[in-house]
Amino acid sequence: MKCRTCGSKAVINMRQHKLALCKPHFLEWLPAQTERFIKKYEMFTRYEKVLVAVSGGKDSLSLWNILIKLGYQADGIYISLGIGEEGGYSDLSRQLCEDFSLDRNQQLHIVDVKKEFGETIPQFAQRTRRGKNKACSVCGLTKRHVMNQVAQKFGYDVLVTGHNLDDEAAVLFGNTLHWAGEFMLRQAPVLPATPGLTRKGKPLCRFYEKEMAAYAILSDIDYIYEECPYSIGSTSIYYKHQMNLLEHDNPGEKSHFYLRFLRAKDNGLFAPPEIIKQDLHECSNCGQPTSGKDVCSFCRMLEQGNEHLERSQVN
Amino acid sequence: MKCRTCGSKAVINMRQHKLALCKPHFLEWLPAQTERFIKKYEMFTRYEKVLVAVSGGKDSLSLWNILIKLGYQADGIYISLGIGEEGGYSDLSRQLCEDFSLDRNQQLHIVDVKKEFGETIPQFAQRTRRGKNKACSVCGLTKRHVMNQVAQKFGYDVLVTGHNLDDEAAVLFGNTLHWAGEFMLRQAPVLPATPGLTRKGKPLCRFYEKEMAAYAILSDIDYIYEECPYSIGSTSIYYKHQMNLLEHDNPGEKSHFYLRFLRAKDNGLFAPPEIIKQDLHECSNCGQPTSGKDVCSFCRMLEQGNEHLERSQVN
Repeated sequence: MKCRTCGSKAVINMRQHKLALCKPHFLEWLPAQTERFIKKYEMFTRYEKVLVAVSGGKDSLSLWNILIKLGYQADGIYISLGIGEEGGYSDLSRQLCEDFSLDRNQQLHIVDVKKEFGETIPQFAQRTRRGKNKACSVCGLTKRHVMNQVAQKFGYDVLVTGHNLDDEAAVLFGNTLHWAGEFMLRQAPVLPATPGLTRKGKPLCRFYEKEMAAYAILSDIDYIYEECPYSIGSTSIYYKHQMNLLEHDNPGEKSHFYLRFLRAKDNGLFAPPEIIKQDLHECSNCGQPTSGKDVCSFCRMLEQGNEHLERSQVN
Repeated sequence: MKCRTCGSKAVINMRQHKLALCKPHFLEWLPAQTERFIKKYEMFTRYEKVLVAVSGGKDSLSLWNILIKLGYQADGIYISLGIGEEGGYSDLSRQLCEDFSLDRNQQLHIVDVKKEFGETIPQFAQRTRRGKNKACSVCGLTKRHVMNQVAQKFGYDVLVTGHNLDDEAAVLFGNTLHWAGEFMLRQAPVLPATPGLTRKGKPLCRFYEKEMAAYAILSDIDYIYEECPYSIGSTSIYYKHQMNLLEHDNPGEKSHFYLRFLRAKDNGLFAPPEIIKQDLHECSNCGQPTSGKDVCSFCRMLEQGNEHLERSQVN
């Protein structure tokens, strides 16, 4: 297999793009494509302040790396979740993010969930009653809250995450199997800002996971290889597996499924957004926008956590 | 496992309904549920003339059987497609439908595609250029044309087919993976009549395939066991398989996927139908409604077939 650009030996063959590339041309191609998607979906410009949510994994650190290379004003935010034995998983991923930011002389915001809110994610998950994937649900809720809080506080124009195509297709697949309309309609490469909520973008949403893994390895990015211990048996992994079965039988299916959805949305398949638009107001506790009655889901979770804590201390 | 109604030995355990029943109670339950769906989706009444499309398979013959038992005015239509070695598959299924109608003293319309249009389905499929599943595509087109033609000619109020939940879920799954909006929005238990198009209903759309197989066997209905030889490797079988994998991991998933879709549609997830409504006009050849420029897809297929035929005779 030869590089389409220069004819030398290819290191990657992307069947879904019908494209094989050598190392230098792949490391050029992926950031150039990222730039194309940032512009296509009008995610942000070089005049805007970007906050990259980094976990220490291949996707988010690669994204940060790419944005810096492309000359964007990109700071990082790392949220320490207290996951793993004695928080070991989180400590390692934090270290990788700190080293990354120091090496590149970029600002990294660090929020320690336990210090800030009194408990780690596993502790929250234990105390609160949420569905099957308690830890993932609590973790998502917490990260969304903290990321927006920091983005708002420091005046970032946009908050970006390292979600790749496999992530996006799996989420869409799950939401579609359940016809979870509101979630489906909110799924997009970019979500515009609304009062109190910073704009969100996903510049990697059109890259396959294996492309991102190849990019991280070939760029010598030091990232955490292990998956989060709570992801084992999670529905997101299950839907990724289902999408991989479909992709195996029809190469490109994952990408088509996601892109055709975006196109169908643009072409008016769904109800106009104003029909399903929620009334948002400020949470009486933290001030972030919420569709809840009084406090937002995050603050409700904190309260629940504390109630349980108090109760268990009494008993 | 005991029958929920009478406590005697159950012959079927329907996990997705959390319901086990003995033979007599299952044979009561399934028609009663069919009646419920006919009413719920306002498919037809006992004052209306119903035309049941029968193929000789378990679903359509069971449906006809149920409608007769329930006291509906239900005639049959059998379309002879010329499938199998020397049309053997079609001959057998035709015989089963004729025997069924004679035993029950019900009218059966028979249309022989070769006699009517000059060629069998396999011959059409060979001559015309249609996608991957040529035979299935040509067959569906032909059956839709003929069924509507007969329903219109004899003044039936509604045309019903034996599509079960597995059929409906698989079609929806395929259309959703491709975000084929128009097809998705047309998928429903009942499609109202429009000028030139008879109303269509699917009274079995909420029964699992295995429930219908059990009903046919326990009712001693003589049906054709073999699948159509062209269905092997078809996309419909592929999507059924994918749905079965999901159902295996989450019993009830198939049913939820379909029913949640119907509910989402009712709740306004999709664009109002008038946005995607097509302009239909009469085919200049057969007079049936079409969205095509001049002739309908069926007549275009006939013409293509004939062109090819003429060409191959010249050579």
